[in-house]
Amino acid sequence: MEKFEVNILGCGSAKPTTRHFPASQVVNVRDKLFMIDCGEGAQIQFCKSHLKFNRLQSIFISHLHADHCLGLIGLVSTLNLLGRTAQLHVYLPKGGEEVFASVIHFFNWEMTFEVVFHEYDDKVSEVIYEDRSLTVTTLPLDHKMPCCGFLFAEKPSPRHILREMIDAYEIPLSMINCIKNGEDFVLADGRVIPNERLTTPSDPPRSYAYCSDTRYMPALAEKLKGVNLLFHEATFCEEDAQKATSRYHSTASQAAQVARDAGVGKLIIGHYSSRYDDESVLLREALAVFEHTVLARENMCVKIM
Amino acid sequence: MEKFEVNILGCGSAKPTTRHFPASQVVNVRDKLFMIDCGEGAQIQFCKSHLKFNRLQSIFISHLHADHCLGLIGLVSTLNLLGRTAQLHVYLPKGGEEVFASVIHFFNWEMTFEVVFHEYDDKVSEVIYEDRSLTVTTLPLDHKMPCCGFLFAEKPSPRHILREMIDAYEIPLSMINCIKNGEDFVLADGRVIPNERLTTPSDPPRSYAYCSDTRYMPALAEKLKGVNLLFHEATFCEEDAQKATSRYHSTASQAAQVARDAGVGKLIIGHYSSRYDDESVLLREALAVFEHTVLARENMCVKIM
Repeated sequence: MEKFEVNILGCGSAKPTTRHFPASQVVNVRDKLFMIDCGEGAQIQFCKSHLKFNRLQSIFISHLHADHCLGLIGLVSTLNLLGRTAQLHVYLPKGGEEVFASVIHFFNWEMTFEVVFHEYDDKVSEVIYEDRSLTVTTLPLDHKMPCCGFLFAEKPSPRHILREMIDAYEIPLSMINCIKNGEDFVLADGRVIPNERLTTPSDPPRSYAYCSDTRYMPALAEKLKGVNLLFHEATFCEEDAQKATSRYHSTASQAAQVARDAGVGKLIIGHYSSRYDDESVLLREALAVFEHTVLARENMCVKIM
Repeated sequence: MEKFEVNILGCGSAKPTTRHFPASQVVNVRDKLFMIDCGEGAQIQFCKSHLKFNRLQSIFISHLHADHCLGLIGLVSTLNLLGRTAQLHVYLPKGGEEVFASVIHFFNWEMTFEVVFHEYDDKVSEVIYEDRSLTVTTLPLDHKMPCCGFLFAEKPSPRHILREMIDAYEIPLSMINCIKNGEDFVLADGRVIPNERLTTPSDPPRSYAYCSDTRYMPALAEKLKGVNLLFHEATFCEEDAQKATSRYHSTASQAAQVARDAGVGKLIIGHYSSRYDDESVLLREALAVFEHTVLARENMCVKIM
């Protein structure tokens, strides 16, 4: 199965603690790295997770609060120091390019590569990135300021062709892709070998959704139907539910409700408030609603199955 | 003896490693905290060193390279989140206010406190901060861009008055400070009690100098004469001496030469290049020149005696 995994770089929230870094994750899709949020220290955590800077392709910023994007300036400065030449694509809400472009310029008079900013519309859900194997779609969230989550979805992949059939029917190289895409194979004598004989089904496409920061959004479940892995913020526990609402955040059990209603495969919670010395209360409350829940931890890597 | 100590928050250089944070230190003078440089992640390290945000008085930035000042934006955002009301004074080279004031404003629409920027002249050595017990003086360095080190010097403190003499001669409260400052005491009958009988000498004033980033500057030794503790950058080892020169940095043995020529009490080296997996080579080379040398380490606290 092709690589599709999520590396947690930071799962704390705005106030610093000795236990967590601010928000940042790296999604590894077939060794292309996509960063989601880039809180202060993301580049340090990137190294600690043994990720490779030259595989970093794009950065997706959910919103322009300091704890979700301040690490961008230092990260770009480091890539410049390393002599990167490939473009770096940064997807972020409107207004982000102006502030980051000028600070990045101040700290990097000469750039070895181009940072290409893509400002997205935070009001609608749309595909903002696409390549041969993947789409990334925005998920408008309910936060104090324009904020979107991201849905990383694999495209359906071709069927697996059976090596022994290639040999048995002497299938030419030029036909391989057609057969992987479902075509039958016609022999010289006109006999048709049906595709099902030549191939096995493709792996079902997998998906990962990142939802932070947001108030509880019951409507989100519809958009997350069948997602394999969901990261949902869980800043507060039930006792602090009122704070969650007034500060545009979610409780752990609300995160779990979204996961349950969407029928996701697995839930990771994070974006912990600094008030909790350990997050077992958050895990307990989430597990009571949705059993396939885990706590995010710095430098954890979760494979998407 | 009054508190005077240096907390190392980060002693790496520009490229991130899993072992070091970028440059930042906190000088604690009688529980007033003065930060020197503020690399990315300084606020996290500040917490790890168990320092108190509400004791932070001023920040001194040596130069405007990313690894020495990017942490300022996140730190100010956190202080704002904590509801700080006291002014925060930031001393930095010319041009720094413009870039930082606008980014800080972007991430903090409403500020609970004022950041007061003081741009210093990097060409001359001058006192840029002074209070009852301390002066901070700039030390122009030889780097790729305008850059100054800082000399933290205690002011001479008053002599210690002997409690038994206060009782014996019934010295009134109003005279105590005069006597601490060296005056004799005249009794009602005209007899003069010499100051030496009433007091013991004050503690000699102590000093700490921070020199980073810089090429080897032999002339620095003159300005650092008798300093109790010196932090001097030691980015490279002897084998990479040419790189040190061309990149405007120092070797460990050059740092030690400055320390030896200045006759300082103790030397801490830091600002290690990411190329060294462990810094024992730097320590060895420095010790060969100046025996009172130690390696900086994150969250180390060095008392100044």
